[in-house]
Amino acid sequence: MCSGHQSPGLWRHPEDQSWRFNDISHWVELAKLLEDAKFHGIFVADVLGGYDVYRDSLNPAKISGAQWPVNEPLSVVSAMAAATESIGFGVTVSTTYEMPYHLARRLSTIDHLSKGRYAQAEEYVKVIYKLLESSWRDDAVKRDRETGVYTAPDLVREINHKGKFFQVPGPHICQPSPQRTPLLLQAGTSRAGKQFAAQHAEAVFLSAHAPAVCAKNIAELRQIAKDEFGRNPVNIKTLALVTPILGKTEEEAQQKLADYRQYASHEGALALFGGWTGIDLSKYGDDEELRHVESNAVKSTVEGYARFSPGTSKWTKHTIAEHVSIGGNGPILVGTPSQVADGLETWVEEADIDGFNFAYALFPQSFKDIVELLLPELRRRGLFWDDYAVPGGTYRENFYRIPGQTGPLNEHVASKYRWRVGVPAEQHSIPE
Amino acid sequence: MCSGHQSPGLWRHPEDQSWRFNDISHWVELAKLLEDAKFHGIFVADVLGGYDVYRDSLNPAKISGAQWPVNEPLSVVSAMAAATESIGFGVTVSTTYEMPYHLARRLSTIDHLSKGRYAQAEEYVKVIYKLLESSWRDDAVKRDRETGVYTAPDLVREINHKGKFFQVPGPHICQPSPQRTPLLLQAGTSRAGKQFAAQHAEAVFLSAHAPAVCAKNIAELRQIAKDEFGRNPVNIKTLALVTPILGKTEEEAQQKLADYRQYASHEGALALFGGWTGIDLSKYGDDEELRHVESNAVKSTVEGYARFSPGTSKWTKHTIAEHVSIGGNGPILVGTPSQVADGLETWVEEADIDGFNFAYALFPQSFKDIVELLLPELRRRGLFWDDYAVPGGTYRENFYRIPGQTGPLNEHVASKYRWRVGVPAEQHSIPE
Repeated sequence: MCSGHQSPGLWRHPEDQSWRFNDISHWVELAKLLEDAKFHGIFVADVLGGYDVYRDSLNPAKISGAQWPVNEPLSVVSAMAAATESIGFGVTVSTTYEMPYHLARRLSTIDHLSKGRYAQAEEYVKVIYKLLESSWRDDAVKRDRETGVYTAPDLVREINHKGKFFQVPGPHICQPSPQRTPLLLQAGTSRAGKQFAAQHAEAVFLSAHAPAVCAKNIAELRQIAKDEFGRNPVNIKTLALVTPILGKTEEEAQQKLADYRQYASHEGALALFGGWTGIDLSKYGDDEELRHVESNAVKSTVEGYARFSPGTSKWTKHTIAEHVSIGGNGPILVGTPSQVADGLETWVEEADIDGFNFAYALFPQSFKDIVELLLPELRRRGLFWDDYAVPGGTYRENFYRIPGQTGPLNEHVASKYRWRVGVPAEQHSIPE
Repeated sequence: MCSGHQSPGLWRHPEDQSWRFNDISHWVELAKLLEDAKFHGIFVADVLGGYDVYRDSLNPAKISGAQWPVNEPLSVVSAMAAATESIGFGVTVSTTYEMPYHLARRLSTIDHLSKGRYAQAEEYVKVIYKLLESSWRDDAVKRDRETGVYTAPDLVREINHKGKFFQVPGPHICQPSPQRTPLLLQAGTSRAGKQFAAQHAEAVFLSAHAPAVCAKNIAELRQIAKDEFGRNPVNIKTLALVTPILGKTEEEAQQKLADYRQYASHEGALALFGGWTGIDLSKYGDDEELRHVESNAVKSTVEGYARFSPGTSKWTKHTIAEHVSIGGNGPILVGTPSQVADGLETWVEEADIDGFNFAYALFPQSFKDIVELLLPELRRRGLFWDDYAVPGGTYRENFYRIPGQTGPLNEHVASKYRWRVGVPAEQHSIPE
């Protein structure tokens, strides 16, 4: 919820409106645009502080507007939900600043308000599962006008969570919302991140400049999910970060990219790179070949980029900056709708990707280009749906294309926490 | 953000829709209704747990639906803001579950999204003032397309707060929002509450069954504000809780009240009373005169009610329940528009009240009655405006009726924290 999210500096472009992110109509218009085009969902990523590794300073991010300033994204979901019916919403939530009891309430509230079209990645999930799934029975709210019973008292219980970090007696304070546990989206392919995702994630965001990098991570993730958590690996959907630059002709697309590059901020890109990698490239000279420097961390990181761009002979900090200054750590696909669609198909085949997380260069023009140029081509190829699987349904029903699948799949860990209709409390003890 | 907020049990009434509180259209429709009628603001109160003093159990609240379940209210503000232009929004925020750095960001975000029409009462205000007022200079965001400067780096600074309870280096992560510090609404007339309000509150909510109780509290509050904090006492606006029951004739109004009473839940009312006072009246017999029991706390509390209802000869727990089961701890004003307007005028005169905080018996019918019956009478008397003072303006501009008054008044403590346009950092050190 900032300007030029993955493309620092492009707020300078005369057609860009990403700097309108403080304005509520900005988000409502985007939600309507993307729902009309039948997008599955909108994800508003978040970062809880500024990018200050590069130059050991926040200044490059301040000046270039690289994810600075940045608002709290859950706040805008209800406005988008009020203006739409079917599109899903996802945001980042940080457990650093949110207590689990309170976050569970915010999640339930938004899930009610968005009628189950809200999605969430979060960490301290066990307490959250207990609050969202185990504390109320599905049918606890009776609202029986004859007997005067709003909630059946025995169908709401304390969770009495006593853990290492949290003591949460409960009960949960909101009634069961459409999805109870919102759709769980995860990002991060560290060893710990994969282990977490293999158990909890329903969708995983990946970003890499080459399909082969994604393919390796996805294969490992799905293997762990199957071996350690008994999940069907195809039920973890993988979404790759991609920034399409579309033109009616190849020349037009290339001209657009050249135009955008004029505005892209290298300082901003190096600020973002510093935050992602912990590496401050301001320590190196303008012409210094980064694959030959002393630091192993720098060498191996830069070699990772170089391996998949064999046409680039020298890797300086400016090569890195140019590489990530539009579309962040994901690929730019430039060309006609047909060329970009070919590129997407390559990713699906080579990386075992289920879908895409489209970033923008210009807001909202990049999305309009996708809607007007790319989607018709994808539909011609039978690769994009004509309508939501369950119009007006929850995010999860549309995500799995299963009417009635409002909660996690039976094989998912959260499902074990669900206190279902008709089950006596003594037959459903809350899992640890 | 619950059913039957101050009137437990009335969700049973066939015309009540307060149980639709999980539905986003419920709130959007209310916001539109009240803005069309030129209401100043909507306040969605909050409670962070269930009412469990009465019977030492949460069950009476669960069964009667007395503020149970209850959603998180800040979540709904952006949806209401997207559908309106001028009406103000207020919610309760609890510092128990919100870290100040994160809350400051949520406040700024909502203030941006609602274009300054959002209001807030909160406690740990000094850290919040530093983040909202002192960290960014008014003109820090340049968005200069020529020079490529989004934010001037020197016009954003760390607050470096090191207090007893919080260590918050800062800087604030959102750019200055229209009001920077949202309008500060306070409730609670304990000694500490009054002291807090006298320094920080711009508006104060009061609830009592008799004007004389309010008058005493308001006089003390204004005296402290003047003597200890140098404020003009009339700038603290006082709002009394009132539940009007309106009819075209007096008979019609009385019939409405009798109708509503059939649905009011005494168990729910005693659950709320328990939460407000800490007194569990389930310990007393149905016919027991509460002014003669052993507990001094019970005696003095009940005598407080009895003093202003001399027509009631016996005070049992059922008398209390009937007293608070519609409209909570505030008066019910029953009658024709003229009679109710007379009642309001009495409160203004006798209690030194500036305005009213209207609770509902039925949602949204009680508000429709106010709009259709009461407001025309108030307008005839010159007691209610024809339009917002600053249509489309911030809550604060409309609250004080001063165009351009988006921030706290100069005399208000928050104003000292404001880093204003053009002031060099060294000439504005952050107050402690």
